[in-house]
Amino acid sequence: MSANHKEMWEKLDLDLTGHDALLEVLGKFYGDIYMSQQGRLKGAEYLDFVLSEIHGLRIKELQDAKAQGHKVVGTFCVFVPEELTLAADAVHVGLCAGADAGREQAETMVPRNTCALIKSFIGFKLARLCPFTESCDLIVGETTCDGKKKAYEAFGKITPMHIMEVPQQKRTSDRDLWRSEVLRYKEALEKLTGRAITAEKLGQAIRVVNAKRAALQRLNALRSADPAPISGRDALLINQISFYDDPVRFTAKINELCDELETRVAAGQGVAPKGAPRLLLSGCPMAVPNWKVPYVAESTGAVVVGEESCIGTRNSRDLVDESARDLDAMIEALVDRYLRIDCACFTPNDERLDNIAAEAKAAKADGVLHYSLLFCQPYTHEAFKVADRLRTEKIPMLAVETDYSMDDVEQLKTRIGAFVETLG
Amino acid sequence: MSANHKEMWEKLDLDLTGHDALLEVLGKFYGDIYMSQQGRLKGAEYLDFVLSEIHGLRIKELQDAKAQGHKVVGTFCVFVPEELTLAADAVHVGLCAGADAGREQAETMVPRNTCALIKSFIGFKLARLCPFTESCDLIVGETTCDGKKKAYEAFGKITPMHIMEVPQQKRTSDRDLWRSEVLRYKEALEKLTGRAITAEKLGQAIRVVNAKRAALQRLNALRSADPAPISGRDALLINQISFYDDPVRFTAKINELCDELETRVAAGQGVAPKGAPRLLLSGCPMAVPNWKVPYVAESTGAVVVGEESCIGTRNSRDLVDESARDLDAMIEALVDRYLRIDCACFTPNDERLDNIAAEAKAAKADGVLHYSLLFCQPYTHEAFKVADRLRTEKIPMLAVETDYSMDDVEQLKTRIGAFVETLG
Repeated sequence: MSANHKEMWEKLDLDLTGHDALLEVLGKFYGDIYMSQQGRLKGAEYLDFVLSEIHGLRIKELQDAKAQGHKVVGTFCVFVPEELTLAADAVHVGLCAGADAGREQAETMVPRNTCALIKSFIGFKLARLCPFTESCDLIVGETTCDGKKKAYEAFGKITPMHIMEVPQQKRTSDRDLWRSEVLRYKEALEKLTGRAITAEKLGQAIRVVNAKRAALQRLNALRSADPAPISGRDALLINQISFYDDPVRFTAKINELCDELETRVAAGQGVAPKGAPRLLLSGCPMAVPNWKVPYVAESTGAVVVGEESCIGTRNSRDLVDESARDLDAMIEALVDRYLRIDCACFTPNDERLDNIAAEAKAAKADGVLHYSLLFCQPYTHEAFKVADRLRTEKIPMLAVETDYSMDDVEQLKTRIGAFVETLG
Repeated sequence: MSANHKEMWEKLDLDLTGHDALLEVLGKFYGDIYMSQQGRLKGAEYLDFVLSEIHGLRIKELQDAKAQGHKVVGTFCVFVPEELTLAADAVHVGLCAGADAGREQAETMVPRNTCALIKSFIGFKLARLCPFTESCDLIVGETTCDGKKKAYEAFGKITPMHIMEVPQQKRTSDRDLWRSEVLRYKEALEKLTGRAITAEKLGQAIRVVNAKRAALQRLNALRSADPAPISGRDALLINQISFYDDPVRFTAKINELCDELETRVAAGQGVAPKGAPRLLLSGCPMAVPNWKVPYVAESTGAVVVGEESCIGTRNSRDLVDESARDLDAMIEALVDRYLRIDCACFTPNDERLDNIAAEAKAAKADGVLHYSLLFCQPYTHEAFKVADRLRTEKIPMLAVETDYSMDDVEQLKTRIGAFVETLG
């Protein structure tokens, strides 16, 4: 990342020394995991560029938007309706939560037995390392797990927050609650931006976000080809970037990349030999730059062909019904779409079991690698249910629990390698 | 416990060998912790008797009630409205969750990083060691934490369950959701028992449960005397028994015991010397026979003068308004009362901070001992907020995290002993 962003980072009150060190580690990490890949897509240049400028040009865009009177809204979860944010002429970005930064500082605010993702977003804030967080006019949290729900109480003391309550079941009264929370978010946005969310603006935002999700669906469908036309690492990165980059640009770039993938598939070209063991990743979200598990998995000779995760199909699976013409009906369509999410925060959450089985079959996966962050109770509990369900489907599964440290890479290689061998 | 209950336990399909071993350990544990106390109340004979017959005569009563056509409903949480259960002529009991039983079996159904309380109720069921669980016609769970919410999905496969959704905030839409859940529980009870819950029956049940809570409030108020007239261990046991015994008998016995306490207080008699360091326990529930922390605390020379916990003031603090005359108004009163609970499942939950400060002052506590079960995210997170609040109140606090093992008793003695010394 070029040095001419320094002034901007200084204005954002980042810890410049710490931030330089972070970028250096990230650059090396990205080089090892991404640039080392053979036969990469031409479209991956976009990914490399976005990543190289993720704390640079993209932040510059946010600052320019702010200078033009737009607001920046940060989120940590796929339950926050991006459509509403965009309809209020605000920028919607996911926040840094995928690296061990500021962990010791974070542990002064949240318990040690908290998952790495939560410690990460608190650590990035306390250590002043995330220019996205520092650019936000509002950060939106949600009640999807105990860890985040309670961590936001602490986080709210150091940053302006709005909390959305996500219900825990899907009954009529839950939909009523969720609807009131969607409306409350709409009001909060209107108050923040001073702009009314109209049917016209919301309709346009729904189409923009649907197009983004449709591009991700298209990408995902192309991965069913054997040989797999794109690595799991690159596909994960695309899903990660979908939370950071401008949605219209992202959609255009990913559709271009999909055109290239289509050519590859037609030519029978791939990133791994035909017949290479195929894995579906399933479980917790992997926020940038958490690439450890797909990297380890693909270093065993397997190829990752899907991500059943919030940074994956849990985000892209469902579109918002575009047939609504007035604002009320659009809100109802949003409420319905978001309540279809198969998050482990729901009880029961059997749709997720159906979706995993369906995705594994659609992606022609030979096995499922279930991934939980240490101390993530919802997904570690569901790992038992996923295992039961996949047993009845005769799809092998390996469950791993890990965090952002590199200490267990060799252990993971051994375990995942042994699992992949059994799929042969 | 007498051997003539064997036949009953056999009918309940308990693991008789394992159960005998459990009772033996429990008996010894009770002897060490309770019978060793000097100058105990005469009223404690009731406690000793109930405990000695908790798996015997009390289970016999449940079986007799069942033979007479009543149903038995088991619970794990103070959110399940006992008033409704009683109004359906059913018996309402708390379930075994305070001992390390069947842990290895439980870990085949829930993650290792699950709190001891959850592993305990699953372990008791899988190891067939709890005659309460085996007597239940229905077990009612709730969504108060990720651990329980997801564990109930597994538990529901091996036992008939009804899940109540507890909201996570206290807005109007949350009250609507909770009201619908209270009504859904009422319907489930009516279906289970075949009996209608009438205004007359519910009014009577509200008075019974209010009287029980009032007796616990009376007990708690008497503990503000110095010297403390009752040990924290005995007071905890009373709170624990309030979940097991017949509520009318319990209320009468505890009021008798309070009469005795009043005489003691008037005579300036106590269980510890006047001026002994006084501790308020605060945090996670301590289910029978989880007496470790108060026992350790009192072995340092301190006396425990209150339990800010679900098995403590979180259960007894609020009464239901008795002024309602018709069923609808009674339901509203129930909804309001239960939504006042200051559980860490709510965000924010600042009422709890106010309540802890007020209880510490009312009990003339010199310090607060915050107790969390390992892996209990809601209470370990709140420990940070409680510490912040008590700092402003200039009330010293020590936070401990532990489980049901005895491995850390010496370490706890050292830490709590050092804390108690600073209070002198």
